[in-house]
Amino acid sequence: MRYLEYPRKLKDIIENLSQEESYQAVCHRHYPDQPMPSSRVLEEIVDLLREIIFPGYYGNSSTRPDSIRYYLGVNVEKLYDLLRQQVYAGLCFDCKHANREDLLMRQDRAAMISIKFIEKLPLIRHLLATDVEAAYLGDPAAQSKAEVIFCYPAIKAITNYRIAHELLELEVPLIPRIITEMAHSETGIDIHPRARIGHHFTIDHGTGVVIGATSIIGNHVKIYQGVTLGAKSFPLDKDGNPIKGIDRHPIVEDNVIIYAQATILGRITVGANSVIGGNVWLTSSVPPNSKILQEKYRHKGFMDGDGI
Amino acid sequence: MRYLEYPRKLKDIIENLSQEESYQAVCHRHYPDQPMPSSRVLEEIVDLLREIIFPGYYGNSSTRPDSIRYYLGVNVEKLYDLLRQQVYAGLCFDCKHANREDLLMRQDRAAMISIKFIEKLPLIRHLLATDVEAAYLGDPAAQSKAEVIFCYPAIKAITNYRIAHELLELEVPLIPRIITEMAHSETGIDIHPRARIGHHFTIDHGTGVVIGATSIIGNHVKIYQGVTLGAKSFPLDKDGNPIKGIDRHPIVEDNVIIYAQATILGRITVGANSVIGGNVWLTSSVPPNSKILQEKYRHKGFMDGDGI
Amino acid sequence: MRYLEYPRKLKDIIENLSQEESYQAVCHRHYPDQPMPSSRVLEEIVDLLREIIFPGYYGNSSTRPDSIRYYLGVNVEKLYDLLRQQVYAGLCFDCKHANREDLLMRQDRAAMISIKFIEKLPLIRHLLATDVEAAYLGDPAAQSKAEVIFCYPAIKAITNYRIAHELLELEVPLIPRIITEMAHSETGIDIHPRARIGHHFTIDHGTGVVIGATSIIGNHVKIYQGVTLGAKSFPLDKDGNPIKGIDRHPIVEDNVIIYAQATILGRITVGANSVIGGNVWLTSSVPPNSKILQEKYRHKGFMDGDGI
Amino acid sequence: MRYLEYPRKLKDIIENLSQEESYQAVCHRHYPDQPMPSSRVLEEIVDLLREIIFPGYYGNSSTRPDSIRYYLGVNVEKLYDLLRQQVYAGLCFDCKHANREDLLMRQDRAAMISIKFIEKLPLIRHLLATDVEAAYLGDPAAQSKAEVIFCYPAIKAITNYRIAHELLELEVPLIPRIITEMAHSETGIDIHPRARIGHHFTIDHGTGVVIGATSIIGNHVKIYQGVTLGAKSFPLDKDGNPIKGIDRHPIVEDNVIIYAQATILGRITVGANSVIGGNVWLTSSVPPNSKILQEKYRHKGFMDGDGI
Amino acid sequence: MRYLEYPRKLKDIIENLSQEESYQAVCHRHYPDQPMPSSRVLEEIVDLLREIIFPGYYGNSSTRPDSIRYYLGVNVEKLYDLLRQQVYAGLCFDCKHANREDLLMRQDRAAMISIKFIEKLPLIRHLLATDVEAAYLGDPAAQSKAEVIFCYPAIKAITNYRIAHELLELEVPLIPRIITEMAHSETGIDIHPRARIGHHFTIDHGTGVVIGATSIIGNHVKIYQGVTLGAKSFPLDKDGNPIKGIDRHPIVEDNVIIYAQATILGRITVGANSVIGGNVWLTSSVPPNSKILQEKYRHKGFMDGDGI
Amino acid sequence: MRYLEYPRKLKDIIENLSQEESYQAVCHRHYPDQPMPSSRVLEEIVDLLREIIFPGYYGNSSTRPDSIRYYLGVNVEKLYDLLRQQVYAGLCFDCKHANREDLLMRQDRAAMISIKFIEKLPLIRHLLATDVEAAYLGDPAAQSKAEVIFCYPAIKAITNYRIAHELLELEVPLIPRIITEMAHSETGIDIHPRARIGHHFTIDHGTGVVIGATSIIGNHVKIYQGVTLGAKSFPLDKDGNPIKGIDRHPIVEDNVIIYAQATILGRITVGANSVIGGNVWLTSSVPPNSKILQEKYRHKGFMDGDGI
Repeated sequence: MRYLEYPRKLKDIIENLSQEESYQAVCHRHYPDQPMPSSRVLEEIVDLLREIIFPGYYGNSSTRPDSIRYYLGVNVEKLYDLLRQQVYAGLCFDCKHANREDLLMRQDRAAMISIKFIEKLPLIRHLLATDVEAAYLGDPAAQSKAEVIFCYPAIKAITNYRIAHELLELEVPLIPRIITEMAHSETGIDIHPRARIGHHFTIDHGTGVVIGATSIIGNHVKIYQGVTLGAKSFPLDKDGNPIKGIDRHPIVEDNVIIYAQATILGRITVGANSVIGGNVWLTSSVPPNSKILQEKYRHKGFMDGDGI
Repeated sequence: MRYLEYPRKLKDIIENLSQEESYQAVCHRHYPDQPMPSSRVLEEIVDLLREIIFPGYYGNSSTRPDSIRYYLGVNVEKLYDLLRQQVYAGLCFDCKHANREDLLMRQDRAAMISIKFIEKLPLIRHLLATDVEAAYLGDPAAQSKAEVIFCYPAIKAITNYRIAHELLELEVPLIPRIITEMAHSETGIDIHPRARIGHHFTIDHGTGVVIGATSIIGNHVKIYQGVTLGAKSFPLDKDGNPIKGIDRHPIVEDNVIIYAQATILGRITVGANSVIGGNVWLTSSVPPNSKILQEKYRHKGFMDGDGI
Repeated sequence: MRYLEYPRKLKDIIENLSQEESYQAVCHRHYPDQPMPSSRVLEEIVDLLREIIFPGYYGNSSTRPDSIRYYLGVNVEKLYDLLRQQVYAGLCFDCKHANREDLLMRQDRAAMISIKFIEKLPLIRHLLATDVEAAYLGDPAAQSKAEVIFCYPAIKAITNYRIAHELLELEVPLIPRIITEMAHSETGIDIHPRARIGHHFTIDHGTGVVIGATSIIGNHVKIYQGVTLGAKSFPLDKDGNPIKGIDRHPIVEDNVIIYAQATILGRITVGANSVIGGNVWLTSSVPPNSKILQEKYRHKGFMDGDGI
Repeated sequence: MRYLEYPRKLKDIIENLSQEESYQAVCHRHYPDQPMPSSRVLEEIVDLLREIIFPGYYGNSSTRPDSIRYYLGVNVEKLYDLLRQQVYAGLCFDCKHANREDLLMRQDRAAMISIKFIEKLPLIRHLLATDVEAAYLGDPAAQSKAEVIFCYPAIKAITNYRIAHELLELEVPLIPRIITEMAHSETGIDIHPRARIGHHFTIDHGTGVVIGATSIIGNHVKIYQGVTLGAKSFPLDKDGNPIKGIDRHPIVEDNVIIYAQATILGRITVGANSVIGGNVWLTSSVPPNSKILQEKYRHKGFMDGDGI
Repeated sequence: MRYLEYPRKLKDIIENLSQEESYQAVCHRHYPDQPMPSSRVLEEIVDLLREIIFPGYYGNSSTRPDSIRYYLGVNVEKLYDLLRQQVYAGLCFDCKHANREDLLMRQDRAAMISIKFIEKLPLIRHLLATDVEAAYLGDPAAQSKAEVIFCYPAIKAITNYRIAHELLELEVPLIPRIITEMAHSETGIDIHPRARIGHHFTIDHGTGVVIGATSIIGNHVKIYQGVTLGAKSFPLDKDGNPIKGIDRHPIVEDNVIIYAQATILGRITVGANSVIGGNVWLTSSVPPNSKILQEKYRHKGFMDGDGI
Repeated sequence: MRYLEYPRKLKDIIENLSQEESYQAVCHRHYPDQPMPSSRVLEEIVDLLREIIFPGYYGNSSTRPDSIRYYLGVNVEKLYDLLRQQVYAGLCFDCKHANREDLLMRQDRAAMISIKFIEKLPLIRHLLATDVEAAYLGDPAAQSKAEVIFCYPAIKAITNYRIAHELLELEVPLIPRIITEMAHSETGIDIHPRARIGHHFTIDHGTGVVIGATSIIGNHVKIYQGVTLGAKSFPLDKDGNPIKGIDRHPIVEDNVIIYAQATILGRITVGANSVIGGNVWLTSSVPPNSKILQEKYRHKGFMDGDGI
């Protein structure tokens, strides 16, 4: 192949990539009159929500009692506009081409859902205040609650989770998952929006934490980095596809602590007040007040072998 | 030290930092007539590749059969221009100052490599379609393949890996590693571009996964978060430097599942159809159809002691 | 609720969120005459520091002996200006409203601290050169030191840590933690700025590493992904709050290697020249030259049960 | 007024500015479900149009016969999307709150108008090619037609005019005027989109040129900087408002040249092949082949007086 | 000079440009603890002011009576913060290095001035409403007042002038001139902030209009493009420098119209209700109700000569 | 035409616009291995030059004698890199496809020209200092030289002109014209880069000024807004094209003042110390010490007629 043949070669490849049999398995049919969800706008929405929930932390707003209302007013109205669009885009995402009447009904539904979500904000703020308190009390390195809100990745991840969970409760498709994946990318903490989590929840450090879709977590639970609440296996239907919607993740009761890298799989129950040590592989239920540790390690002489 | 002395003090520090003995160990001699690789441009390249491979997912392109060709045409031509520059920058990165003839030959080589890479795109798209299918079938929480492509970090990481792997096969220095590190930072999944990975590959959640440079992974393999396919140790040469190019990472055969946080080290083989449980430390080969679990944990009474 | 009622509904929610009882637990009282720390500016500061420490790696500077001085001069002066502001913002962050005299004294202190920090740059550069050397010698996949500086996330994380540690030594509040959290988000490596770490330190891959605030790490130590140097538990005061400032993290002596996913908790000592295998849960001291491995796994027949 | 009173003072002013009697005369009632025209998007539209009309001038497109089609395809499709929105915004601008049926009809009309406008692009390109040719032949300082297209402000202004004129012909409100004002700000040339202008039209230098709404300009006309084709006066209706839609600007026939700063006012005719000298004030028709110059100046002795 | 000598040559030039005798005449001694006025921030200030004065025109704000207050609240508070800084920068611009006490006093003065300026906003809005009305009534091409506010460059220029004039009245240095020059660059209309202008003022088209510092313009005055209200000459002091502060520009009384390109120089008076024709050069006063036209032009035969 | 036909319609138009007979007259054949001049980069170059020439005016640089050298060093080196590229792009602009040897020679020439231009910077700075002095002494409204440099559009336009003129002297194509057009757009002042202009040159207000390519202007000349130094007409060659390179613009000798809107055309001489009044149309030479005014205006009664 010589230099002068490159343009023709590029043209051939473009032709190849434009064949339906090449792209059909990985192509999203996106109708031009229906918006696509936008990661950039969803980031803006999450930033707005952080400003609304935690006033004064992001430098763009006053917290004088007189003027806090102006900033909240503008931010809530912007939120409503942006969220309505994105919820609408989410409602359209998996749909076939629709007639106009359908699109108008989806727009109405998106507006209604957005209002209902915004109504939950005082409650979300209240829950997050308990999470901040738990993080502050549980970490001797924390100097103040302000530091916790400003710096701790867990607060970012739990904020995104609590937002996404409410949107999922309102039956918004796709958008909740994008919002928790944004936190996953930023913090390494992967909480499925469908999980149910009580108040005073904390995650320390957090990188590598996974909380699966049907997990149920009580109040005052603390989890360390690398902990998995996952599924062991799942039944397949007669076509070999996984059956959706079966409870397959753990139940963690109140006041449980789970140390770093523990892997807890399946629809088992970790009883209240239990402590799970780090690096444990746990696939069956334990009663309340249990204390589970990894089997004692081996101390191996240095002459034994191949390096480690 | 008083306020008025600060300018002089700054001048002294600048002088100190400008001494060759201070900077020589950490300085990159970059010749002004040779481009540096640019993370920003490489991000643009990866974005273009995602648009080319998965048409319709990023809102900037039509997928009507009539016009998909326009978008692919423009994107492939942009890709060629940007990639050619970056490959050239990669070829220059570790070289000493070169004469003009050398630079021209490198430019030609960069163009040739870029064309050859672009020729592989239909194949890369085909392989990624199998990965998407595997992720969809393997996760009861996935609502559709579209959601998998749009949201799942594993698809991002595997896309970057498959791109980087082809560039490495074409002997491009540095650039492949930068591309997989971009995905590492975004997803917490660290796949060395030199690893060899079959079709229908999935990683669930993924944060903390490490797949070393000489790993070989078969078809239909599934890996969970925190899994390491690493090296145990490596021989040193007579100067105490590690000997490069020795196979030191595992071989994972077809249809293997490896659960969260398992650490598999050394040039061992995990036989086909095996299941490796979570949190296992595995440094020797296991035959096909094995099922490996961590030693049973200890259930320790709450009165035993020191906190946990 | 009908469409026309939405504006009134929004107004009610804004009113609710503006009530002091709603926002008081999560609101930062920020005085308008005192700057807030800015993540964006701190990112700019870290970028400047990387350019100053590793000349020639970021494409914006010459490394000819004649002109390196110009670039360092401009970058150090910009650094001084930006750092002075952010240190001042950090000094203000947790303070009550102050009179003018206090603010002026804080500004003076911020300038003094910034100069003292900049004086440490040659030393920080020297330490990082040892870290780069250790990473290069310890990884057969590394092609050159240049590749290590350009691509390896560990160098980014350790750079941020060494910067943040010096700022903490100078008693700057909040800012050091923000700087290490920036690296945490980018690399998944979480090193507390208060930890003390010797020269020739390396972290391989790194995602999920946690190094707690009172950890002490010797020279020539190597750590793999997912390793935790954490705290087991901590004493509470009579009000149930954790007592701050107690040593609660491990001491790791010279020449220790700790493999992936090991969890080492509490004020224990890992003696010099020891090797800790992966996925180990270690809560008591081990003498020098120890070799610690996880208890041998179980090989379970495939007929045993429920999937894994 | 003391420092502590400022917040209250600001609050009072905000209250004052929020009173309907203050803002009603200068406020645009903008309905949230109707888009506003956006200067930023209109600039993007004009940039796209320039790329479509003059391929190869803006560095982002190939002009190889093979691939020019890709770039035109993508640009025309983007243009259609953006233009449709802005035309819709223009149709909404002056309207009262509308019911859904009205909005849908406006959307359909915006799409239809956009298609019709795009159909005119080959003709607009053809006319602009004649303008470029006239500028090149008429200016000894022009080195090439390429320089004319790339640098001459007149080409920018006439391009915007020809675009805006077609949109006005299609009865788009507001948008055409915004597009010509963009060129007015950039070049100082103010051509009303309603003016009718023949082919081979040139403006040299151009700052200060004004061409009024009912002007008619023939073919092969050349105009210099500061020339006005304006209205003298206009009849008022019985309420004292100007009567809209009356022809009140000049007719300039073929092959006329008008030199710098000439002011030509009213519905007069400048006959074909005439030359109007600079700084002339002309308010009555002149026959074909006329040559009109300012009255000869006075040469005044230096001792006469007051400075000039 | 050969390629290898370029670095040394650059070094010599840098040295030359760094000599005090080279830069002293064109260098601004800027003290690092004093801010510089920033064109970018002043543009932001002008954008904020346009949003505050003309609610609903810039797409970022609601005009529902309920929520207009939120937007005005946020915008006025942002304005206060930014303006205070820029006024402070203006107060510092021409000053010598000051002690801390001076700087604090200037900061206080900047805050006081900013509050006083903001108090004028309702009045400025009221005056601009009269200008909009005059433009609408005076132009048959204007479709609505909304179009006038949205598109007409004169409204932009007069808005900047009215803002700048109030700041000058409050004795802010430099900033007012920067604000009117911003409009000058955008619209070609150059109004000195010191000029005094009545209500219902309009400028049609506007490019090239100059209104000098000591001009006085009455109510209901209309000016066309290219009109100059300038100074003829000015007395020098005994050192040959112009004497500052002498009235040297025209007085234009109520209801005057001045047509395009007229040049009116010196402290003369144009009496009420006069009409000045285009391209007139006027250097002496005219009584009320005058009508001034250029001397009749020459109609020159085409055979006369040299081209025009 | 119905909605469903739009895609096909768009496709037809794209096809039409892609035909060579449609685009050939307005298309720039741009070879992919040759850079295009970039307006964005040229703006960056002009910004750098303003910072180099006028240190301390743009807030990004120190003017302490110690550190001014760092800033100049970095800025001059950046300038060299960017300018070399743009000069190279200019050299390529009008060329046919070239072989490699030609391209390398052009690159060398671009580097040589850039060095020679940079050598002129001390001289350009010196000349601009005289222009600043003249503007300050000539305007009673100017408060300081600092205000003149910071705010006066004439300084921006003359700076661009003096830069562009040196580049033209070094035979750089296209780039000089783009640089003066940037100032033309920003200030309304259009100075051809080929004009020759002495020291102590000032333009007051400036909008609408045109100075043609073969104009020669002496020292201590002052020009007001709207003044044209233009060409009357120009001889055509036997094909009807204008003959390039003939002197066709005025010579203005030392100490001349030209008032607003005067139009001076042709290769005539305005003798030293002359004053040309505003709105004059001058097409023949005047001796030194002349004072030229427009013929006296007509004072027309108000009853005469049609409005004006």
